[in-house]
Amino acid sequence: MATVALLDDEAAGADARAVFDEIRAARGTDYVNNFWRALAHDPTLLRATWDRLKDVMAPGALDPLVKEMIYVAVSTANGCSYCVHSHTAAAKTKGLTDAQHGELLAVIGMAMQTNGLVTALQVPVDAAFDAEARGAG
Amino acid sequence: MATVALLDDEAAGADARAVFDEIRAARGTDYVNNFWRALAHDPTLLRATWDRLKDVMAPGALDPLVKEMIYVAVSTANGCSYCVHSHTAAAKTKGLTDAQHGELLAVIGMAMQTNGLVTALQVPVDAAFDAEARGAG
Amino acid sequence: MATVALLDDEAAGADARAVFDEIRAARGTDYVNNFWRALAHDPTLLRATWDRLKDVMAPGALDPLVKEMIYVAVSTANGCSYCVHSHTAAAKTKGLTDAQHGELLAVIGMAMQTNGLVTALQVPVDAAFDAEARGAG
Amino acid sequence: MATVALLDDEAAGADARAVFDEIRAARGTDYVNNFWRALAHDPTLLRATWDRLKDVMAPGALDPLVKEMIYVAVSTANGCSYCVHSHTAAAKTKGLTDAQHGELLAVIGMAMQTNGLVTALQVPVDAAFDAEARGAG
Amino acid sequence: MATVALLDDEAAGADARAVFDEIRAARGTDYVNNFWRALAHDPTLLRATWDRLKDVMAPGALDPLVKEMIYVAVSTANGCSYCVHSHTAAAKTKGLTDAQHGELLAVIGMAMQTNGLVTALQVPVDAAFDAEARGAG
Amino acid sequence: MATVALLDDEAAGADARAVFDEIRAARGTDYVNNFWRALAHDPTLLRATWDRLKDVMAPGALDPLVKEMIYVAVSTANGCSYCVHSHTAAAKTKGLTDAQHGELLAVIGMAMQTNGLVTALQVPVDAAFDAEARGAG
Repeated sequence: MATVALLDDEAAGADARAVFDEIRAARGTDYVNNFWRALAHDPTLLRATWDRLKDVMAPGALDPLVKEMIYVAVSTANGCSYCVHSHTAAAKTKGLTDAQHGELLAVIGMAMQTNGLVTALQVPVDAAFDAEARGAG
Repeated sequence: MATVALLDDEAAGADARAVFDEIRAARGTDYVNNFWRALAHDPTLLRATWDRLKDVMAPGALDPLVKEMIYVAVSTANGCSYCVHSHTAAAKTKGLTDAQHGELLAVIGMAMQTNGLVTALQVPVDAAFDAEARGAG
Repeated sequence: MATVALLDDEAAGADARAVFDEIRAARGTDYVNNFWRALAHDPTLLRATWDRLKDVMAPGALDPLVKEMIYVAVSTANGCSYCVHSHTAAAKTKGLTDAQHGELLAVIGMAMQTNGLVTALQVPVDAAFDAEARGAG
Repeated sequence: MATVALLDDEAAGADARAVFDEIRAARGTDYVNNFWRALAHDPTLLRATWDRLKDVMAPGALDPLVKEMIYVAVSTANGCSYCVHSHTAAAKTKGLTDAQHGELLAVIGMAMQTNGLVTALQVPVDAAFDAEARGAG
Repeated sequence: MATVALLDDEAAGADARAVFDEIRAARGTDYVNNFWRALAHDPTLLRATWDRLKDVMAPGALDPLVKEMIYVAVSTANGCSYCVHSHTAAAKTKGLTDAQHGELLAVIGMAMQTNGLVTALQVPVDAAFDAEARGAG
Repeated sequence: MATVALLDDEAAGADARAVFDEIRAARGTDYVNNFWRALAHDPTLLRATWDRLKDVMAPGALDPLVKEMIYVAVSTANGCSYCVHSHTAAAKTKGLTDAQHGELLAVIGMAMQTNGLVTALQVPVDAAFDAEARGAG
């Protein structure tokens, strides 16, 4: 159940269909997942989101698989069920092994736990962690 | 300002001090950061947290720097200021470059954005993302 | 699947039914949605919630449609699926157009993104944003 | 730094001052904390919040100290620094011992961790947990 | 729909099955819920999670029922649907009455509300709440 | 205290300075706030964020003040202190009155409260809220 209808190729306008075709070409599959079909009601938002996502997730200083794991971590902390599913699936496509998945889960769990402890204790930030004082980037 | 006093070595009990010493040895520094000093009121919790953190963050199927980036990602989505500071500092110690930091930020920002779009649209999970149906791990 | 049974008019007590009837009258429909049926186990909580909701969402300095969009924004950031569905539906009933819905989504996505960037960067608040210093309300 | 000025007794209007006085009487202290002074710009909101808080936190089926611990737990998961500080202080006033504080922290940390694991794994809810099927309240 | 298959006793390895058997013994039931079956892909994570959960939720300075309510509170603020279901069910098993459930809900709702007000107002923490200044634990 | 140094005009590179100048021109002030100075370490991210923000917050189907209130609502639910400060200040610049501010706070508080109640109750979504079934956009 969504808050908008998911648009198939026919229902989507020409601008949205053009993005669908770019997604198909970039991923080497005919399948366009529901997120893009929901965004298709607003072709400007669809276009801006796809263009930016493509750039951000491209290989660079970080490995694409690392980027997917970071995506899963954020989506988990935000409780976004769809995002956890789609980016875990993407990570597997990009080579996530079972051992890596297990360690990803362990780090997420550990981070959630210490986040809670730190917040409940209201630990003040150590001066040693101050990037500005270090003059560093 | 914290919800408990931060215990220095003298104020901490013997059990807490033993953990402080393990932290010093593991990190090759005399400095023990505020998180551990706040936890020292409950030596059992301090011990359990340190033992588990040490295991989880050790090199394994994932690189220690990758683990720190995942930690930063979770802490950011949870809005834990101390955790963002301490694990960004830890990532820099483990070799995070400015270019990697920039990409980490970009992925976190992108994930936050699409998390919001997906949730506002309530996009239903594609059957293609179902691990159980794939019988996969 | 809920953590309590949803009470129909018969199962609900007289106090809860009285609230159901006020909801029907206020909305001009016989339909009482699941939220109220779940709250009906605790008529005091049901009454307090309905009375306050009615006041808060009434026309005032802000337009009722604007209030519904703010409600959707909070519910999205909190990841409350039911709330996103119910208040998006309410916004449509109050006149939300497709173009407005698209812009609402874009603002939510942008806010989520910059929230993440700001938190990962731990940007200190500019003195210029200090209401107390301005002596302003 | 706040988004509104904190109103002292003189700056607050008569309606806000009346609430301040009720807070003083209820707590047996002359001190009115910042939260109420920030809310005082909108006496209706101040009144509604204080009236409801007083009812909700009163002794009932749950002990007032238990209620404060639940409040700390929610505030921690929401990352509300002020709320963690004020309700931890309130819990101490109501008798929270150091041992109880330690266990509260441990439960919060554990819950945060398993919340993360469950969400990253997207574990489907067991039919056994369905209150509706049990016909239970 | 999960991101991993749920392992039954046969599919789980010997180490995971040993944890399953401890869960059965501790709870006096043959039923092992989905969370543990999802974790069984990583027996080390399964073991660490179960061992710690057992310790943390054991009777101590806080009553087991109080601990379950704190767990529900954290899980609610994190929006973890599975966790809310499983720990509400556990709380009922440990004696949560309908009246207590109603008050738990009311406190959670109140805390969520004031968390939002405090954060939107950016109320600065009162010096009176400073545990360090009080030299207190 | 930030995780990166805030770059003044001199320290920022030419690409970042070009964005600073666009911000100055668009806002009719010489002041560039800390967020942009922190992003300036990564001119690509700075450029992408500014370009998109400018488009999204421009007048359109929604009023700019309404957009700022939605931004404050999201930032509040995410607990982003800087964002709440900066967008509350922006909203005041765009005409937010004290009465509107009070109602914004009341709606945010109400939404937070019912989000918590709905999640703790795990209320199933009413079929009546299904946009797909309605064939609606």
